[in-house]
Amino acid sequence: MSARMLLPMRRIGDCVFLSGHGCEGEDGKPIVVGHVGDSVTLEEGQRAARRCAQRMLEALECEFGTLDAIECVVKVLGFVNSAEGFDQQPLVMNGFSEVLVERLGERGMHARTAIGVNMLPNNQAVEVEMIVKLRSEK
Amino acid sequence: MSARMLLPMRRIGDCVFLSGHGCEGEDGKPIVVGHVGDSVTLEEGQRAARRCAQRMLEALECEFGTLDAIECVVKVLGFVNSAEGFDQQPLVMNGFSEVLVERLGERGMHARTAIGVNMLPNNQAVEVEMIVKLRSEK
Amino acid sequence: MSARMLLPMRRIGDCVFLSGHGCEGEDGKPIVVGHVGDSVTLEEGQRAARRCAQRMLEALECEFGTLDAIECVVKVLGFVNSAEGFDQQPLVMNGFSEVLVERLGERGMHARTAIGVNMLPNNQAVEVEMIVKLRSEK
Repeated sequence: MSARMLLPMRRIGDCVFLSGHGCEGEDGKPIVVGHVGDSVTLEEGQRAARRCAQRMLEALECEFGTLDAIECVVKVLGFVNSAEGFDQQPLVMNGFSEVLVERLGERGMHARTAIGVNMLPNNQAVEVEMIVKLRSEK
Repeated sequence: MSARMLLPMRRIGDCVFLSGHGCEGEDGKPIVVGHVGDSVTLEEGQRAARRCAQRMLEALECEFGTLDAIECVVKVLGFVNSAEGFDQQPLVMNGFSEVLVERLGERGMHARTAIGVNMLPNNQAVEVEMIVKLRSEK
Repeated sequence: MSARMLLPMRRIGDCVFLSGHGCEGEDGKPIVVGHVGDSVTLEEGQRAARRCAQRMLEALECEFGTLDAIECVVKVLGFVNSAEGFDQQPLVMNGFSEVLVERLGERGMHARTAIGVNMLPNNQAVEVEMIVKLRSEK
């Protein structure tokens, strides 16, 4: 049923609203599972966040053929599966933001919110949603 | 005071940003209270999510007279009141998404993020915010 | 690195998407730390929420010179660092909403979602993201 209800992204004019993407690997399983600050280290959390960004850029490339279609990233909302007492969500999400800037340069700069939560789907470490703007001519 | 500060939705051009809606029943009380995975079952969580969708569609009908005014649903951000260890938020939110597709057909398909949180207002099981696009002629 | 990745806000047409803002004081430290309903009272949580709003309006004034540039606030998404059992996130966020209406009048009315989470950056009590619409002539 989900396949007929959900979209990886919805485009409205030049704005693209992407679904929440987790840190699944090639096999469809999250590459990092658990709460950051408990069984998951900061570095592992950052690796999970990097993976989320890679997956979202892949989804955008798949949809629009090339990342050149992107004028800029608008906003990122990142949720970090957080152990009680772990309050460095922005450091985790820097892994995500770094990938955007590595791949897109200044176009990858963005407004961002980084939040801690107690549970995420499949107990993955990070989940992120994002809004991007396309170039008008695309 | 809230009545003079908060809006059920704000329209910007053809986009409508809806406030978070919970699973309140006709009497104004949440129909499902508690954490999914603990006192609340998956099926009850889905019922709560369905109720959120029904309330949001009612709010849209109230505002625009008919759901025909909706060109498509853009994005859904769902928060599931989650017990430690419950990691099936997408299954809960499928209850929400099903209502949209049942009522709106393909126009009800959407980008979605499903997140677990430790507490929600009035301890209700689910709360959801949503963006929809109106037909331009409306 | 963050300084070159993150923006306080991103403008797309007349819409401005602001980054999550916390309740930092002049010294850069959160003015209220901890979980509302545990070490933090409702009143302290509201004070933290008010501070978030003041910081966001300051950021908008800094960017656009004057709050007259704002046509209206569109949507507010507030996260309240919540102790298990605390379910009055809307009351906390009323502190935020009050500042918007005090400063902007009817333009400050908005759609809103108030959510509880188990952890926030630097263990601050409240973090909020917001979308505002600028007047077209600006």
